[in-house]
Amino acid sequence: MNKRKIIMDCDPGHDDAIAIILAAARQELEILGITTVSGNAEIEKTTMNALKICDLVSLTDVIVSKGASGPLVRVRETAPGIHGDTGLDGPELAEPSRSWSGEHGADTMIRLIKESEEPVTVLPTGPLTNVALALAKAPEIKDHIEEIVLMGGGTFGNWTPTAEFNIWADPEAAKKVFDSCIPTTVMGLDITHQAMASQEVIDQVNQIDNKVAKIVGELLEFFAETNKEMFDLDGGPVHDVLTVAYCVAPELFKMKEVNIVVETKGEFTAGTTLVDLHGVTGRERNAKFGLELDVEGFWNLMFESLKKY
Amino acid sequence: MNKRKIIMDCDPGHDDAIAIILAAARQELEILGITTVSGNAEIEKTTMNALKICDLVSLTDVIVSKGASGPLVRVRETAPGIHGDTGLDGPELAEPSRSWSGEHGADTMIRLIKESEEPVTVLPTGPLTNVALALAKAPEIKDHIEEIVLMGGGTFGNWTPTAEFNIWADPEAAKKVFDSCIPTTVMGLDITHQAMASQEVIDQVNQIDNKVAKIVGELLEFFAETNKEMFDLDGGPVHDVLTVAYCVAPELFKMKEVNIVVETKGEFTAGTTLVDLHGVTGRERNAKFGLELDVEGFWNLMFESLKKY
Amino acid sequence: MNKRKIIMDCDPGHDDAIAIILAAARQELEILGITTVSGNAEIEKTTMNALKICDLVSLTDVIVSKGASGPLVRVRETAPGIHGDTGLDGPELAEPSRSWSGEHGADTMIRLIKESEEPVTVLPTGPLTNVALALAKAPEIKDHIEEIVLMGGGTFGNWTPTAEFNIWADPEAAKKVFDSCIPTTVMGLDITHQAMASQEVIDQVNQIDNKVAKIVGELLEFFAETNKEMFDLDGGPVHDVLTVAYCVAPELFKMKEVNIVVETKGEFTAGTTLVDLHGVTGRERNAKFGLELDVEGFWNLMFESLKKY
Amino acid sequence: MNKRKIIMDCDPGHDDAIAIILAAARQELEILGITTVSGNAEIEKTTMNALKICDLVSLTDVIVSKGASGPLVRVRETAPGIHGDTGLDGPELAEPSRSWSGEHGADTMIRLIKESEEPVTVLPTGPLTNVALALAKAPEIKDHIEEIVLMGGGTFGNWTPTAEFNIWADPEAAKKVFDSCIPTTVMGLDITHQAMASQEVIDQVNQIDNKVAKIVGELLEFFAETNKEMFDLDGGPVHDVLTVAYCVAPELFKMKEVNIVVETKGEFTAGTTLVDLHGVTGRERNAKFGLELDVEGFWNLMFESLKKY
Ligand SMILES: [Ca+2]
Ligand SMILES: [Ca+2]
Ligand SMILES: [Ca+2]
Ligand SMILES: [Ca+2]
Repeated sequence: MNKRKIIMDCDPGHDDAIAIILAAARQELEILGITTVSGNAEIEKTTMNALKICDLVSLTDVIVSKGASGPLVRVRETAPGIHGDTGLDGPELAEPSRSWSGEHGADTMIRLIKESEEPVTVLPTGPLTNVALALAKAPEIKDHIEEIVLMGGGTFGNWTPTAEFNIWADPEAAKKVFDSCIPTTVMGLDITHQAMASQEVIDQVNQIDNKVAKIVGELLEFFAETNKEMFDLDGGPVHDVLTVAYCVAPELFKMKEVNIVVETKGEFTAGTTLVDLHGVTGRERNAKFGLELDVEGFWNLMFESLKKY
Repeated sequence: MNKRKIIMDCDPGHDDAIAIILAAARQELEILGITTVSGNAEIEKTTMNALKICDLVSLTDVIVSKGASGPLVRVRETAPGIHGDTGLDGPELAEPSRSWSGEHGADTMIRLIKESEEPVTVLPTGPLTNVALALAKAPEIKDHIEEIVLMGGGTFGNWTPTAEFNIWADPEAAKKVFDSCIPTTVMGLDITHQAMASQEVIDQVNQIDNKVAKIVGELLEFFAETNKEMFDLDGGPVHDVLTVAYCVAPELFKMKEVNIVVETKGEFTAGTTLVDLHGVTGRERNAKFGLELDVEGFWNLMFESLKKY
Repeated sequence: MNKRKIIMDCDPGHDDAIAIILAAARQELEILGITTVSGNAEIEKTTMNALKICDLVSLTDVIVSKGASGPLVRVRETAPGIHGDTGLDGPELAEPSRSWSGEHGADTMIRLIKESEEPVTVLPTGPLTNVALALAKAPEIKDHIEEIVLMGGGTFGNWTPTAEFNIWADPEAAKKVFDSCIPTTVMGLDITHQAMASQEVIDQVNQIDNKVAKIVGELLEFFAETNKEMFDLDGGPVHDVLTVAYCVAPELFKMKEVNIVVETKGEFTAGTTLVDLHGVTGRERNAKFGLELDVEGFWNLMFESLKKY
Repeated sequence: MNKRKIIMDCDPGHDDAIAIILAAARQELEILGITTVSGNAEIEKTTMNALKICDLVSLTDVIVSKGASGPLVRVRETAPGIHGDTGLDGPELAEPSRSWSGEHGADTMIRLIKESEEPVTVLPTGPLTNVALALAKAPEIKDHIEEIVLMGGGTFGNWTPTAEFNIWADPEAAKKVFDSCIPTTVMGLDITHQAMASQEVIDQVNQIDNKVAKIVGELLEFFAETNKEMFDLDGGPVHDVLTVAYCVAPELFKMKEVNIVVETKGEFTAGTTLVDLHGVTGRERNAKFGLELDVEGFWNLMFESLKKY
């Protein structure tokens, strides 16, 4: 079987962690490497969390490289209100068995893409700083990226009324990605809010009897609480997991080809994605945008994958 | 009975026209004056249309004053794709029986507010240029305005992916209004899209046997077609009519107090309203925002009012 | 003799006051009206100061109309550090013999321009709010304005590193004026800093034996002190006076036709004028810009004019 | 003698080339490495030019690393009107004897700074992309940079009315440098325009009888012509050379400590440096800014250095 080669560029983060867990369970994917970025928490924490999750799911021979410690140009902001102080509050996880690679995340991304015989899919689930740095240093990798499947943006916001956290945290990096002409697929809030880990979902996860599922249950419970508190949501939307699910089962997703640009200059709107659903701007299509999720299919994929552990 | 004193500041426009028709039918309201603005069409056309509608509903002793011929600072843009060349394409309307007042719309607004013994409610249903000019010339009127009930903005856009036409057409004017500290009530696209004049609605209007209802039916038919073509909507949302309906029957509206600011500086986002539904910005509440419409109640109000003609 | 018809739109202000004094002394000019604006001080103060100066130079039959109390869109800022609390600190001036007209400054400007048989020259020496309001209300006056000769902008700033006070105080209004296609002549800081009222100049003014000259001497002394303190200048540059001098004696001025645009959007640069001296932008010329003043000729004009009182 | 360790980050470019030539002649400096950036010409050309100049002055054991091929976020622009198609038109230079290092310029900068026992001075004379990338990847190098002495910005512009080319070409990178808290010294247009290579200067260079001086003479002649044509200057200002001269002979420079910020958001002003010479902004000082050059001393330093070849 020809596995799809992926690089996971993430800031774990509860949903990033579950995204790694899902990916590690899937035969359809080969994780070439994991690169971390500052976002939900500081870079030291997101890197530590990535290493811990790799141990949990036995990804110990996959390279983990620490990437950017802050956005390209702006001041760093994190999201402790959602992910807790460690960036992954909730479950108890053992200290990692190893350290990160010593190579910068952006360099690992460049190297893995260049070394791969087949085109590589990049799955950014944090701010897009590493991807932007990689494109800045080695623009020639564009031709060897099959697709960028990212979590970010949407037609509405969470961190501001119009901006989603990942794009808001580094708008210039996001602009660079959307302007890059690489095939880009976007899981924005419109579709990720459909993947709400309700109490019912958590209950089903908790019925799966293995250590990984137990941890996932604890992650979802913590995440549901903070999302309730901060955004008045009924459960935590497992945003980042959709990027992995899309690579495995695209048939669960109703997508639309649209133009997306990122605002970097506004007084109030920096980090806003303008998703041109109705073609009113006349700008060329440059992204596939997630409209509708087969919610039942998605959760079944999750449950089935967790049972493999 | 103590009638609520209103000034209608509009750019007719199909939905502006129906808003005037509804207001003229209601005993609860006293229309002090109508001021026109460039928006859906050029100022000469919107003024002509206002005069024609006044004739239609016998508002011949209400002053009609021509206002701003373009936005405060930016270049003028109109919306012929939605409202046709005249700004009110569809029905045949007789030439108006009189001319406009000769007083500038902003001056009429200032004068009527100052002359009124009771505080006045202003209903802007076009770009906010006249209101901004009135506030610029006579900031002291603020204390004599009971409420501004405007159509504009929303958590999504129509003219751009994030901006609604009225705000987009004059963002600086809108900013001035939202920063004014006058009690402001906002009918944005979120709620106006609930007031969709579907074929079923049009059929019911057409069953009302009087000249005014016949004209309204023709307006709605034209409007439904262009909204179908341009925005792929199932009927025309009678946006502006909600400002009048709210003054008459606020119980039909579920509102939320929020902070709203207007972006004037972005590369792509000028004219975007940031409606802080979840209080994530920490900015003070400065507006009531329409969330949910009692759709049946609203149309019944319309039908009942049209039957009075 | 055919006098040039002028309207002085000002925010006195020491240099505005001297500009009025110079204009009143000149046979070549007919002052149709004086309109005031918020700028150096609040509108009540600048209006009061204009009335006092009119009394001083017997301009008691020239209309004085109070205009805008703040900028078009932004928050009002004044300049007490330069002009003192009254906006005209220094000399003792009698209470004015009359009140302002009761007509808004922008309306007076519109009316006087429309009533004049000959085209009118407008001399704005404060923020451009009144001119912008007049253009917004009555764009048709453009064709009846011979020239706008304004003090504002330059290739460097005083209020910020790149912005001059008058433009900075209302960038949107300035943008409207520069985009208006009216022939515009600009006395920016580049040339007004050449008109420095040094101690030597003040001494010569003080040798002129009349009441008006005595007041001018006191104005210049106060102005020199605050300019020394705030900008480390050797004397006060009588910025606004150059607009009047240019109308009387254009041969004293070396001008260049250039393109000028006004920044309204920057994070740090709102109110900056971009004066394209070397044609690097490719944008069309829209203004005459003051490069070099015949300094001796200018002061001689001043001295000679003051001696007429 | 304790030599000052420097890294030259450049886009040769006539004045960059002469800066390298001056540095190579000086015993006071040790060139640790040369990194190239896209700017005056495309990255392939500026790298080729750096290699050629290294050959000319026998810097064959100094690493030359190719850096960024375009700005951090924006679209690349070059300056062929000033530097010709090759980026170094004028003299005939032999093909380089070697290729670039294979390490990215930003990585070379990081490595050399980390490897050096003493703090390193960085001399950027092109757009600041490489420095920004180095700071993004390895913020910890800040503490090991003694000083950044850069050519860029000023109180007026050349590429736009308010922006100088190097800053304008990558405003976001420049912002990152000025916000970095590294001691920064700025040779802006205010002082570099004092280092004008007039015909008299060129004549003196041409009287120095060696190959390097002959090439410098040819570079200056080409540069004078294009500067005459494009900016109407009397000779070419050898902007970049001042960064080297300052490291060797700071006594030739009158400097002022000021605050400098970079505009990244304006409609017309992106890339403008706001140099707060008079402290009007209240922002903290973050740079030394070049005010006045001992012109004779500067050229004598040049002549004397060229005679060493
Ligand atoms: Ca994430
Ligand atoms: Ca309307
Ligand atoms: Ca003034
Ligand atoms: Ca250079």
